Amino acid sequence: MADATSIIIFGASGDLTHRKLIPALYNQFKKGRLPEKINIIGVSRTEYTHEAFRELEEKGVREFAPDSFDDATWAQFVPNIWYISGDASKPDDMEKVSKELSNIERENTNRLYYLSVAPNLYEPIILNLGVAGMAEENGAWRHTIIEKPFGRNLASAQALNKTVHRVFEEHQVYRIDHYLGKETAQNVLFFRFANTIFEPVWNRNYIDNVQITVAETVDVGRRAGYYDSSGVLRDMFQNHILQLLTLVAMEPPAAFDATALRNEKVKLITSIRPVSAEDMVVGQYSDYRQAEGVTPGSTTPTYAALKLQVDNWRWRGVPFYLRCGKALGTKVTKILVEFKSPPHLMFNLQEGDKIARNILSLCIQPDEGIHLQFEAKIPGMNGFRSSEMEFHYKDSFAEKTSDAYERLIVDALRGDASLFTRNDEIEAAWRLFDPIIARTEGDHAREPELYSRGTWGPDAGDTLLTKDGRQWQKSGCLHDLKHGE
Amino acid sequence: MADATSIIIFGASGDLTHRKLIPALYNQFKKGRLPEKINIIGVSRTEYTHEAFRELEEKGVREFAPDSFDDATWAQFVPNIWYISGDASKPDDMEKVSKELSNIERENTNRLYYLSVAPNLYEPIILNLGVAGMAEENGAWRHTIIEKPFGRNLASAQALNKTVHRVFEEHQVYRIDHYLGKETAQNVLFFRFANTIFEPVWNRNYIDNVQITVAETVDVGRRAGYYDSSGVLRDMFQNHILQLLTLVAMEPPAAFDATALRNEKVKLITSIRPVSAEDMVVGQYSDYRQAEGVTPGSTTPTYAALKLQVDNWRWRGVPFYLRCGKALGTKVTKILVEFKSPPHLMFNLQEGDKIARNILSLCIQPDEGIHLQFEAKIPGMNGFRSSEMEFHYKDSFAEKTSDAYERLIVDALRGDASLFTRNDEIEAAWRLFDPIIARTEGDHAREPELYSRGTWGPDAGDTLLTKDGRQWQKSGCLHDLKHGE
Repeated sequence: MADATSIIIFGASGDLTHRKLIPALYNQFKKGRLPEKINIIGVSRTEYTHEAFRELEEKGVREFAPDSFDDATWAQFVPNIWYISGDASKPDDMEKVSKELSNIERENTNRLYYLSVAPNLYEPIILNLGVAGMAEENGAWRHTIIEKPFGRNLASAQALNKTVHRVFEEHQVYRIDHYLGKETAQNVLFFRFANTIFEPVWNRNYIDNVQITVAETVDVGRRAGYYDSSGVLRDMFQNHILQLLTLVAMEPPAAFDATALRNEKVKLITSIRPVSAEDMVVGQYSDYRQAEGVTPGSTTPTYAALKLQVDNWRWRGVPFYLRCGKALGTKVTKILVEFKSPPHLMFNLQEGDKIARNILSLCIQPDEGIHLQFEAKIPGMNGFRSSEMEFHYKDSFAEKTSDAYERLIVDALRGDASLFTRNDEIEAAWRLFDPIIARTEGDHAREPELYSRGTWGPDAGDTLLTKDGRQWQKSGCLHDLKHGE
Repeated sequence: MADATSIIIFGASGDLTHRKLIPALYNQFKKGRLPEKINIIGVSRTEYTHEAFRELEEKGVREFAPDSFDDATWAQFVPNIWYISGDASKPDDMEKVSKELSNIERENTNRLYYLSVAPNLYEPIILNLGVAGMAEENGAWRHTIIEKPFGRNLASAQALNKTVHRVFEEHQVYRIDHYLGKETAQNVLFFRFANTIFEPVWNRNYIDNVQITVAETVDVGRRAGYYDSSGVLRDMFQNHILQLLTLVAMEPPAAFDATALRNEKVKLITSIRPVSAEDMVVGQYSDYRQAEGVTPGSTTPTYAALKLQVDNWRWRGVPFYLRCGKALGTKVTKILVEFKSPPHLMFNLQEGDKIARNILSLCIQPDEGIHLQFEAKIPGMNGFRSSEMEFHYKDSFAEKTSDAYERLIVDALRGDASLFTRNDEIEAAWRLFDPIIARTEGDHAREPELYSRGTWGPDAGDTLLTKDGRQWQKSGCLHDLKHGE
């Protein structure tokens, strides 16, 4: 394969480029993790000179990677940045991009195309890449990263996959889910499979239920127009939360490689029983409909809670409760595993003594850590109290947990698709969520339960568990730290 | 049963009384855990007035319970303290003690006899209690606490038990092992049996080996003469360390009561395979023989390390390594459970990447807590590093962990023998240790390996594990805090 590598960002004038992508590339450059010969080429319709684009990106890195920015490194990094203006959805413009790209590269060069554009542009750009011969691998690889959302239902995802496969083979395609790039999400797998003591109890014999919470304090903000056509189920559940679920629930793959991992994930997703109407709750924060861009009388959910059942030997009978919402009282992403009570209590409980169940909290963000709630003896008495063993990434590792995009871009450069979503996986996810989402749309759409800002969502979200004799458990995860994303 | 209760301490002029017993009683009085009507009566040969004895004990509490001492409480407590002089090993003196006791009590009163005397006085005092009719229960109970050591081998322990049973029934007898009174020792049982997630992996399928370390920095000091006739195996292994082992290794009792608990302990001790000569190491710190009171050329071990095998379904093939010594480099008591490696490593280990085994550290003293070592992903890379989840009693409980004697005396008052050693248990312990100790005594005694002060003992103590391909593992327990005992 070729020595040199180009990263071509389509939609380079968008927010993601200067907030995330260029800072991530800068950080990886600084850590020496980018290929030695690297070009980073922004493409979009806006007219910039190379110089103007570089200045724009410098501003971005200074703002969004302030801790790592330094002039000397930037001076080494910036000559690798280039800009090409053009509308990549137009075949002629793509021809122009292709030529200018070759001028910049001046040798046979590997290419990572990064589609950071509006979803309706994925197909034209991919087709144009094909027409311009830019997907062909002649001694240099061609990878393409496709940002989310990947389709808005099963049919559109299938259509998009079909288009993608007209131009690229599956191994060239990297569908991003930035939750999989998070260190703490990946650590779920390391935690489960690099340790001996958790896997033996990681099943229906010992686990009572699993709870995944993704709570945001922000509301839909300026994205109201887009959000209203999407909703929390598409925005968070079908992709991120389902991915977290696969990490917790999948069988151990034989190897930590893209094929083995994704086979297990697909197996898991296809084992999830279709969700009945009683096992879902949708909500909307009370003043959502007043936001600019929201359809009058919109039934778009800004909150949802689901009860999923996984029909396999490991999980049969163990409910997975998922919830996510905007404008809630706290910002936290956490996976909580609630174990069953001990089979027999030998201790003579006194009046008022209670025994709590063991709870393992995998804290994804903002607290990055693991908490294990167990029962300990109260000193001087025979009663118990719940105590915690705690682990915090920041206390144990000098290395900072890096941004998801840093990891994902480098993986795509290296050809490691483990943390990206495969075509069959994404289709399986839509197959599960299409009927759920259908209940929230159209003439017979379910009316979302209203909830006040700053709460944990509508009461019905709690009832989903209390009717099963359970409740959303407090985790040890620290909330509201508001550091980082 | 009677309303009032007396605690009669034989050997009241000894160190234990003013260092431990009276401070423990004072603290329990302050916490309201003593019976309302209580007499505390010191008995020994020294002549004291009640007043002089009370002053002596006040000094003791001020010195050894400085945090809890206050004048007001002491003023309420002190009128309950009395003193009777007499040599309880003489029948006539015991008659006198009996009379004065009745004068103090003035009503039918429950009695806890506390034998805090030299071991050679246990039998005469017990027999005299019998002769004087002081063991008889007529509407008021009679309990007796016997301090350690209980015998110096199987024969003497059996003889002592026989004498004890001539006067008391087994349910009246409380043989003390103050290690069982330690909160953190008791918590081993709570940890195992009040939680769901540890017991399933608490067996030969998941545990590679168990390591119990009791390290002391002090040398034999002024006890050299006594110690030389005893040695570390009698002083620490046959009682304390074996007790810790039973807590870690016993099967779950059906109830947390004296009979059920002690049945399981006896079952465990009798499942331990006789220890072969190759599975034991004895050591002596290099200048031990220079201490005053030590026999010239003494072979008494001040250090020992043993490998025990428990022949039952749970533990077959899992070695229990025990070590204990004086004049070592650190002061710590800890139980370390080393789990097996994961059955399959799916991760692509890079050159230099290592995977460590899970280690659970039950820290008994001076650090009181639990540490779980597990493998976590290094941020930004695919490698692992060992990390710890930690729990410290002092961070989680406002209640101070109380002194072992506080707990044990109150249990003996209440008639709860769970944390005391039963006759068959103590005999089983001697049955195990007699042949081990025999190798360290007499004409063919094994020469102890010399070790320098401030080390972890002789090299042979390490070889005991390295020849099995194992090593003494570092635990998360904090060492050398030197707070409390």
